[in-house]
Amino acid sequence: MLYVSYDEAVRAMERGLLRYLPEKEARRFAEIFAGNSLDGVLSHGMNRYPRYLSDMEKGLCDPRVTRAERVSGFGALEVWDAHFGVGPLIADQMAGRAVELAGAHGVACVSLRNNSHWLRAGRYALAIADGGMVGICLTNTCMNLAAWGTLEPSTGNNPIAMGIPRSKGSLVMDMAVSQYAYGKLELMAQQGKMLDTPCGYDCEGRETCDPAQIIKSGRMMPMAMWKGSALSIMTDLIASSLSLGRTSRMIGATAAGEKGMSQVFIAVHPASVVDMQAVEAQMEETIAFLHSLPPHDGHSVRVPGENLAQIRARGLEQGIPVAEETWSQILSAGA
Amino acid sequence: MLYVSYDEAVRAMERGLLRYLPEKEARRFAEIFAGNSLDGVLSHGMNRYPRYLSDMEKGLCDPRVTRAERVSGFGALEVWDAHFGVGPLIADQMAGRAVELAGAHGVACVSLRNNSHWLRAGRYALAIADGGMVGICLTNTCMNLAAWGTLEPSTGNNPIAMGIPRSKGSLVMDMAVSQYAYGKLELMAQQGKMLDTPCGYDCEGRETCDPAQIIKSGRMMPMAMWKGSALSIMTDLIASSLSLGRTSRMIGATAAGEKGMSQVFIAVHPASVVDMQAVEAQMEETIAFLHSLPPHDGHSVRVPGENLAQIRARGLEQGIPVAEETWSQILSAGA
Repeated sequence: MLYVSYDEAVRAMERGLLRYLPEKEARRFAEIFAGNSLDGVLSHGMNRYPRYLSDMEKGLCDPRVTRAERVSGFGALEVWDAHFGVGPLIADQMAGRAVELAGAHGVACVSLRNNSHWLRAGRYALAIADGGMVGICLTNTCMNLAAWGTLEPSTGNNPIAMGIPRSKGSLVMDMAVSQYAYGKLELMAQQGKMLDTPCGYDCEGRETCDPAQIIKSGRMMPMAMWKGSALSIMTDLIASSLSLGRTSRMIGATAAGEKGMSQVFIAVHPASVVDMQAVEAQMEETIAFLHSLPPHDGHSVRVPGENLAQIRARGLEQGIPVAEETWSQILSAGA
Repeated sequence: MLYVSYDEAVRAMERGLLRYLPEKEARRFAEIFAGNSLDGVLSHGMNRYPRYLSDMEKGLCDPRVTRAERVSGFGALEVWDAHFGVGPLIADQMAGRAVELAGAHGVACVSLRNNSHWLRAGRYALAIADGGMVGICLTNTCMNLAAWGTLEPSTGNNPIAMGIPRSKGSLVMDMAVSQYAYGKLELMAQQGKMLDTPCGYDCEGRETCDPAQIIKSGRMMPMAMWKGSALSIMTDLIASSLSLGRTSRMIGATAAGEKGMSQVFIAVHPASVVDMQAVEAQMEETIAFLHSLPPHDGHSVRVPGENLAQIRARGLEQGIPVAEETWSQILSAGA
């Protein structure tokens, strides 16, 4: 692992992106890659940059499209089409649109079809929370997970993200339905690490803790067995139904060919109906209580997202961790 | 286990409820207990009847209140107060209100404070789905789960339910954040069964597969470790924030004293923005694909809720399973 300064990381990635995108969009996209790593989400940050360039090269993502098109709407519900454009830029636009609509209606749902990979689900729930709203964001993905009851990759490791506005820093949960995110498996395989519990099958269908074997077989196991499987199937069908977008099945069976995801951005505006000071007071009481509990087995209770400001500050001071190989790919793409 | 006909079950429970409720409400409440068991959700059906009577007796639930009161609203977002009334009757009302509001606005969010136990989360997601809408329902509960990182019961085994409208019968997922629902643990303990994997701790803090030990220690483990814990904390804070209702912490630390839950009902109306025939066609394609997969280890892939019509038909024909002890309590309450 190298440690690179945030500004240097953004500049380096911007250079490579300028081959595909106008200056402003290249800058914003580079900031998203670097920002996800800065937030500690190493599995969905700069490590994804080389693959994204290759997706644009191969036509899986169309860099000419950086804004979605509104295709229909009724009240606080809208459907947009990303036309296979630049995933995170378009998802940012949709999170903003959800906040805007919820400001007018109290609650809003924006559904999006044909988007490219949005990188990190939590970014959009956090954006909605930072806009003062409770956010719930869903996406489907290609069939990179064995549904419970079969060994075949047959459903997506679909993340669900939730955000809660909070004066001391919004809370955010970002959770794929496997025990470990696919990007986390890749990272652990790269580092030669083993998993705590078996989270997938090898090519012979045996449960394994080796992330490299799981990536090879394409057989991740859903978290909590049937529960993760159920959550994955529902997320896929909700995201594709609300947008009339592709199902996991239509997106395909391999991570390499993933094209055109369906995504949902829900925002709810509590400040329009309840006293936010009272809400925050009881929220802080819960957080303080969770912090007061005796730790167990080397862990202590964590509230999702509560350490984000600290993680960011540390990254800005000490630099962002990047795998050497990734960094050299970033530099050569920008050369 | 006894098998009792649905009609007989409803009549027997109605008799006991008439001590607390007017005729129409007693009938509807009895139908909810019996209906949950008829749908195969034995952990949140007739087995809960004796405890609910005792909750009404003890004043944890006020049987005089069977409708919630609207306390504020803005556009498609409303806050209601249940005033500790009859949980499932009020939750039915809220699911109906969410469908009504989403019909007018495309999407709606109804949040509810101070409700009594709503029994089965899936009932309300299913009601929203049967109303033609995608439903997402959340509730918190008392602190009956050890957050990841401590052995202390410190967060709730908060369920999340999702429903999807479908001509062949709505899909519904109903998932608490422990590997097994508390009611399921009670049922398995009653039947002397052991769990597949350790899903909680005994009084000495050791992981155990014995449901009776887990109930005794009050230390259920979140599903998927830190993931279930995160989901539980977020669900609690979202439900309590949107309603300015009680947090799990405020509800209390024991199942015995659980009073005044916070609940959320979200409805989204896809038919107002997309072609539902096209949506259903691609949904059926996914379901058929999942059914076509080779089974593994004695399981085959299940789509959440797909067997509901079959389960209901079998229950109507063969009767609903009820523990003998529960049935005799039901009969004596109605005597």
